Amino acid sequence: MNEMWKFSVPGIPDELFSRGTVPMTREEIRVITLSKARLGPGMTVWDVGSGTGSIAVEAALMTPGGKFWAVERSAGGCRLIRENSARFGAGSVQVVEGEAPEALVPLPRPNRVIIGGSGGRLGDILEVVEKRILPAGRVVVNAVTLETLAGALDFFGDRWQTEVVQVSVNRSVKMGSSRLMKAGNPVYVISAWERGEDLGG
Amino acid sequence: MNEMWKFSVPGIPDELFSRGTVPMTREEIRVITLSKARLGPGMTVWDVGSGTGSIAVEAALMTPGGKFWAVERSAGGCRLIRENSARFGAGSVQVVEGEAPEALVPLPRPNRVIIGGSGGRLGDILEVVEKRILPAGRVVVNAVTLETLAGALDFFGDRWQTEVVQVSVNRSVKMGSSRLMKAGNPVYVISAWERGEDLGG
Amino acid sequence: MNEMWKFSVPGIPDELFSRGTVPMTREEIRVITLSKARLGPGMTVWDVGSGTGSIAVEAALMTPGGKFWAVERSAGGCRLIRENSARFGAGSVQVVEGEAPEALVPLPRPNRVIIGGSGGRLGDILEVVEKRILPAGRVVVNAVTLETLAGALDFFGDRWQTEVVQVSVNRSVKMGSSRLMKAGNPVYVISAWERGEDLGG
Amino acid sequence: MNEMWKFSVPGIPDELFSRGTVPMTREEIRVITLSKARLGPGMTVWDVGSGTGSIAVEAALMTPGGKFWAVERSAGGCRLIRENSARFGAGSVQVVEGEAPEALVPLPRPNRVIIGGSGGRLGDILEVVEKRILPAGRVVVNAVTLETLAGALDFFGDRWQTEVVQVSVNRSVKMGSSRLMKAGNPVYVISAWERGEDLGG
Repeated sequence: MNEMWKFSVPGIPDELFSRGTVPMTREEIRVITLSKARLGPGMTVWDVGSGTGSIAVEAALMTPGGKFWAVERSAGGCRLIRENSARFGAGSVQVVEGEAPEALVPLPRPNRVIIGGSGGRLGDILEVVEKRILPAGRVVVNAVTLETLAGALDFFGDRWQTEVVQVSVNRSVKMGSSRLMKAGNPVYVISAWERGEDLGG
Repeated sequence: MNEMWKFSVPGIPDELFSRGTVPMTREEIRVITLSKARLGPGMTVWDVGSGTGSIAVEAALMTPGGKFWAVERSAGGCRLIRENSARFGAGSVQVVEGEAPEALVPLPRPNRVIIGGSGGRLGDILEVVEKRILPAGRVVVNAVTLETLAGALDFFGDRWQTEVVQVSVNRSVKMGSSRLMKAGNPVYVISAWERGEDLGG
Repeated sequence: MNEMWKFSVPGIPDELFSRGTVPMTREEIRVITLSKARLGPGMTVWDVGSGTGSIAVEAALMTPGGKFWAVERSAGGCRLIRENSARFGAGSVQVVEGEAPEALVPLPRPNRVIIGGSGGRLGDILEVVEKRILPAGRVVVNAVTLETLAGALDFFGDRWQTEVVQVSVNRSVKMGSSRLMKAGNPVYVISAWERGEDLGG
Repeated sequence: MNEMWKFSVPGIPDELFSRGTVPMTREEIRVITLSKARLGPGMTVWDVGSGTGSIAVEAALMTPGGKFWAVERSAGGCRLIRENSARFGAGSVQVVEGEAPEALVPLPRPNRVIIGGSGGRLGDILEVVEKRILPAGRVVVNAVTLETLAGALDFFGDRWQTEVVQVSVNRSVKMGSSRLMKAGNPVYVISAWERGEDLGG
């Protein structure tokens, strides 16, 4: 049972997750990513480079009957994913310790793939994704480097339809009685779906 | 029944709404707004300055058993809200044609208030909101002008806890074979909740 | 003689200044600030909250025959301003150790005032500025907090003409073979000039 | 003689230029571009895809003894460059009507090259630039599309040193008594200089 998040929308505050020193997709970027993934009931979802599992956990809470595979190569990350899944009652998240794309091969075919980290092997990962993804599938890549952005666009080329948004969030932080606007690094959220598939649903 | 959005996350693409010439909260800002509102099952929600109703419609789809009051002063806007509610099967949205804050007075007390437009009367509106909002309530104000930002912060002062994020979204637009990054205007999303209330849930 | 910057445009890289732990206006914001100040030959300029003196130094290099007063309350800052002025040959920069607005009172009347820091006393400072500034004067305030932004706009009101731009700069940083886009905090650059004065020059 | 801009810093307001329907680099981006170009006395500068000539005009005003070649393929653009050069007294700007890179070949070798538009032929242009640029030269590319950004980075590769900044400017626009923050499209400013050359000066 979910003890900690009783709301019906995503956007769990970052500080409620265990995160150690693992980078985490911040909450505003996370809700946009989940939105772009067009999650729906019963879907199978791969979360590649899952980090703390924050995306997988929120996806699971939003998707009744779904199956979620959180793929993460670091043992410390995997431990955090398990801890965060338990904390928020995301029982449908399965942790896969291993490196993508090899770790993806035995997984059930996905409806949705979210790629938060690629360990420098984005092209290889997307090749496996392209072979295994189910019809009407969607892929969402979060890029924080220009190389990941360019690599994703190169891969999708004209075979896939794509949308790119760059999201920047400045957050107010109290400094005495003032509010400093503190910038978060911009994230490119690249959504891709196969030509001929229906965008809206 | 909902025919047009079969997904379990918010983020209906802007172009799926009827919008005429009424300004609309763009989809990425909308999902962040819904997230900050911490919507939960059975809640009563006021959507003030509802415009096309896009926020009210998505809130309704995300909130089982909720009640939604979309307050809008223009007749054209009210027509759009009805059209969009019907299109997406958001039967729990009730349209209130009238000007805030007067139109708010007869409504049932809300758990959540989302203010997308205030017609220059933000202070008056927030006074009514402060009187009527239920315990553990939250208010989210979307500001596109510096005056609305300052007015909201002045009102909330130290009586409420607040969080301010400024969200900017650049979207790629095809120009021949190139992708121009086109900027959307930044939106300040101001969340407020009463001192002593639990933020996370 | 200027040994270190042989170019005729502003924009000295941040790392060429001595800066200790004092906050510094980053180079892209600095060139925009100097531009908005409409510096011209022979002008008298106050740089209030001068920090490392980076603004005063670049202003001096760009303004033949000008006089520059760098007002800074911290002794460490004053030392840095002297060091940076010497390094870049900005002999026309005079350091004033003291707190604004009191430290401003004995200074010669300015054509231009640049306010990079106000120590929480922006209103008091602007009152002195308004009394002392020469005809056709301009004021530029760099604000990183919402309170400084609101305070400046409140002060200028309708008596002054104002322009506000918010500048955000993301800078690529090498991470292995990738370029991470790293966000700098946004700065509001508020320019003000008296009603009836000619904007362009 | 320069009648219209009596200041010693760049940043002529956009509305003081004649511009017809030709796209123009906005003033804040322009001053950053000039800064990144490290203009210095006596330099020869190519302004490729000059548009209205705003960059060439401001560069000329900032660079005593310089020579400026404004390359523009449209006849209407060339007319505007001549008009703007005359208006601001930028007598050192020479207009070259023609398409880059062919139009670049007969020009004197440059110290600096600024590329504001490439007509889809960025790679060809940069090849000519690389052959002709003088020692200690610098190139600045302003990119508004992801393709120009990727193309520039691909070309410079490891042979050149590069810096990338992405600049976003929101500008306040009066709407009644309120200030709407209106976003300008983000511009990637890519600076490149040859390995082994001194960055700062």
